[in-house]
Amino acid sequence: MPKVSSQWLQSVLGKLYHGRAMTRSAIVRATSLNPASVSHALQFLLNRGVIFKMGTLRSTGGRRRDLLRLNAEVGFFVAVDLEGTRLRFALTNLVGDIRYRWAEDLDFGQPLKVDRIVNGISTVLGNLDSSERPRVLAVGLSYPGFIDGAGRITAINQGWHRMPLLAQLRKAVDLPVFLQQAGRNCILAERWLGVAKNSNNCIYLILGSGVGIGGFVDGKLLDGSNRMAGEFGHITIDPDAKDRCNCGKRGCLEAIVSSPNIVRQYLAKMDSPGNGAASCSVAEVFAAARRRDSAAMEVLDRVCKCLGLALSHVAMLLNPELLVLGGDIAYGEDVFLPRLKEQVRRHIPAGFPHSFEIKLSSLGLDIGLKGAASFAFLNSLRDPALLGRICTPPFSGMHVTEMKLPARTRTKAAAKPASPAVTRD
Amino acid sequence: MPKVSSQWLQSVLGKLYHGRAMTRSAIVRATSLNPASVSHALQFLLNRGVIFKMGTLRSTGGRRRDLLRLNAEVGFFVAVDLEGTRLRFALTNLVGDIRYRWAEDLDFGQPLKVDRIVNGISTVLGNLDSSERPRVLAVGLSYPGFIDGAGRITAINQGWHRMPLLAQLRKAVDLPVFLQQAGRNCILAERWLGVAKNSNNCIYLILGSGVGIGGFVDGKLLDGSNRMAGEFGHITIDPDAKDRCNCGKRGCLEAIVSSPNIVRQYLAKMDSPGNGAASCSVAEVFAAARRRDSAAMEVLDRVCKCLGLALSHVAMLLNPELLVLGGDIAYGEDVFLPRLKEQVRRHIPAGFPHSFEIKLSSLGLDIGLKGAASFAFLNSLRDPALLGRICTPPFSGMHVTEMKLPARTRTKAAAKPASPAVTRD
Repeated sequence: MPKVSSQWLQSVLGKLYHGRAMTRSAIVRATSLNPASVSHALQFLLNRGVIFKMGTLRSTGGRRRDLLRLNAEVGFFVAVDLEGTRLRFALTNLVGDIRYRWAEDLDFGQPLKVDRIVNGISTVLGNLDSSERPRVLAVGLSYPGFIDGAGRITAINQGWHRMPLLAQLRKAVDLPVFLQQAGRNCILAERWLGVAKNSNNCIYLILGSGVGIGGFVDGKLLDGSNRMAGEFGHITIDPDAKDRCNCGKRGCLEAIVSSPNIVRQYLAKMDSPGNGAASCSVAEVFAAARRRDSAAMEVLDRVCKCLGLALSHVAMLLNPELLVLGGDIAYGEDVFLPRLKEQVRRHIPAGFPHSFEIKLSSLGLDIGLKGAASFAFLNSLRDPALLGRICTPPFSGMHVTEMKLPARTRTKAAAKPASPAVTRD
Repeated sequence: MPKVSSQWLQSVLGKLYHGRAMTRSAIVRATSLNPASVSHALQFLLNRGVIFKMGTLRSTGGRRRDLLRLNAEVGFFVAVDLEGTRLRFALTNLVGDIRYRWAEDLDFGQPLKVDRIVNGISTVLGNLDSSERPRVLAVGLSYPGFIDGAGRITAINQGWHRMPLLAQLRKAVDLPVFLQQAGRNCILAERWLGVAKNSNNCIYLILGSGVGIGGFVDGKLLDGSNRMAGEFGHITIDPDAKDRCNCGKRGCLEAIVSSPNIVRQYLAKMDSPGNGAASCSVAEVFAAARRRDSAAMEVLDRVCKCLGLALSHVAMLLNPELLVLGGDIAYGEDVFLPRLKEQVRRHIPAGFPHSFEIKLSSLGLDIGLKGAASFAFLNSLRDPALLGRICTPPFSGMHVTEMKLPARTRTKAAAKPASPAVTRD
């Protein structure tokens, strides 16, 4: 058997991750590799238990084609999500399914300590038994804000200014660490695992304690000249507004539409600004609007006006086909989304085909963790040592049995146990 | 000699177009092809006179490396530019150098007739003698507005609504026709031939009778889901403004910062709105501002305020490193640019590295024509028939002599005539 190039493996594993279950010919089409290379790579991966045959498709001509799938238990990732109001950790398998997770509250107004992140990672690892520990490949981490060339992060809401996160984690954690900015992380998760799976021009908008964008533009993750694209929370959306942003400017989008600022405006209208955000959540503002409370409706009108205007700029500039909304918006889809759509529409000229679909994220609060795991997987494929480990799982040489397929797929299912259980020969 | 793949030729010719003069090893690096493939492709192209050796570089180690260059006379393009206040035509050589050109006035307020475009193309072709005519490969055309899947163009300022331009040109012109939207066309020209040559994240802003953007994002031409990205003239930049745009909305960026609208606002302040745009040009408004005329300065202040705000949104969203301004701004760089830069700066938060360089286009009014020719060349490489014609020039088999290099490059120039003249063996 000829040598299997790591480029073939990378390419085949990447497509199988995205496609989940694929035939050999679908993989050939997706990778643009030559069919012989794909066959060699697939045989290599099958021999080592990295992929398995999950059944057989029978085409109209009667030809049988094996349906192949990644063995999700080949490796694990530790996923960490720093975006939002809580600190989240999880152990995921190779394809981003969460095995266990937990979240800790963040102390707002206090800078986040790296020790807490390191402890969280250690706790995840401590939960594994000695046979599982070697299967952990890397840590994926989603951070808000932006990073410089030296891996130092500036994140206003976390109280970080050029925090050398990467260096500190590398010192404290005995695993490769991959950092991804939260907006990019979320759109990556939506593209790999969520509602944006088939979209080449899509935008993910985080609406939570912060506001940011991650985008796929013409099939490529939006990065920018120093990887700072998507800092959309800090566009000046209303130059005359008095709302002061944490960044120091006035009239930023985030200063008007982030969850704490929705609450702030609502409390101000209720004449109780002194109570602060802790006394009310954004879900309560949505609930008040649902009751047709005039203060809540006025606040949401202003929020949707500003956000709709901002999103119409994205539409005219980038012409996406899909916008995915994530974060606290989930609590108020009914009162928020129709208002927002109306405001976006107002600013797109009649006859211009710049409208886009707006969907809520299907990944909910797990999106940061799932994105971090996806990102770690993608980067592991590009790292020769990690690719080698993926292709040499601890149970390498074992045999993975075929599994029964749901009846609706046109397959001839193998008469073997239903779960993709790993069994010895 | 092994078969030369058209993918190798495409790749090598593309890189030579961009790099202008390159060594074999630089081409290998740039194409990521294997060195043997590059050598075969180069020998094939040298044999046919499509490229030539323009001299020899001597490296510090004393090794000689041939410097290779595209033979620009291998083929011609007809370039057409519909953007702006005049209709422009040119004949260019393979690398976009203009051999001859002319421009016709457009009748504003009247829909542009396709016959005028067809006649222009015929006149360009009629100017060639019978030995040159076969070398014309294709027509490249730059259009304002946007196109649908059937090649129908909607361009407000040209009075076109779903005008089937591609179909009409294909019927009337006996050459392949490649249409490119003006914004994309301009950034392409700046990337291939102008000031954005080394930039992977750059924006071209047209400021003229219309306003639009063409962008390179992470090294890729910005397209969008239905190829309508960059319609930046129609973002609502001031929701409270009364300025009505040709698109029907109020407060569009174009309704405030396009040349006719700069003139309109100036005349309104001078109490002579009835005179219309014809009585004054944007250059005169710039000249008045230079004399510190208060009406002109007020107008430019408003224009820069709106444009600066809009560009800061582009900065936060796309994080480009370079913005190239083209069009009528050339008449007022001194009075316009400092004001504009100040306004962009205001809206970028302190400490955020989202600033970008702003340069004026170096290609001036030829940018549309040069872009159209570049676009036609790029597309010709992807078209098997046209690639075949580029690789089989009428003088195929002739020998192209080496040329003397300017003294400042460290080369050993060949002792042959100075110009890249085509001579027989």
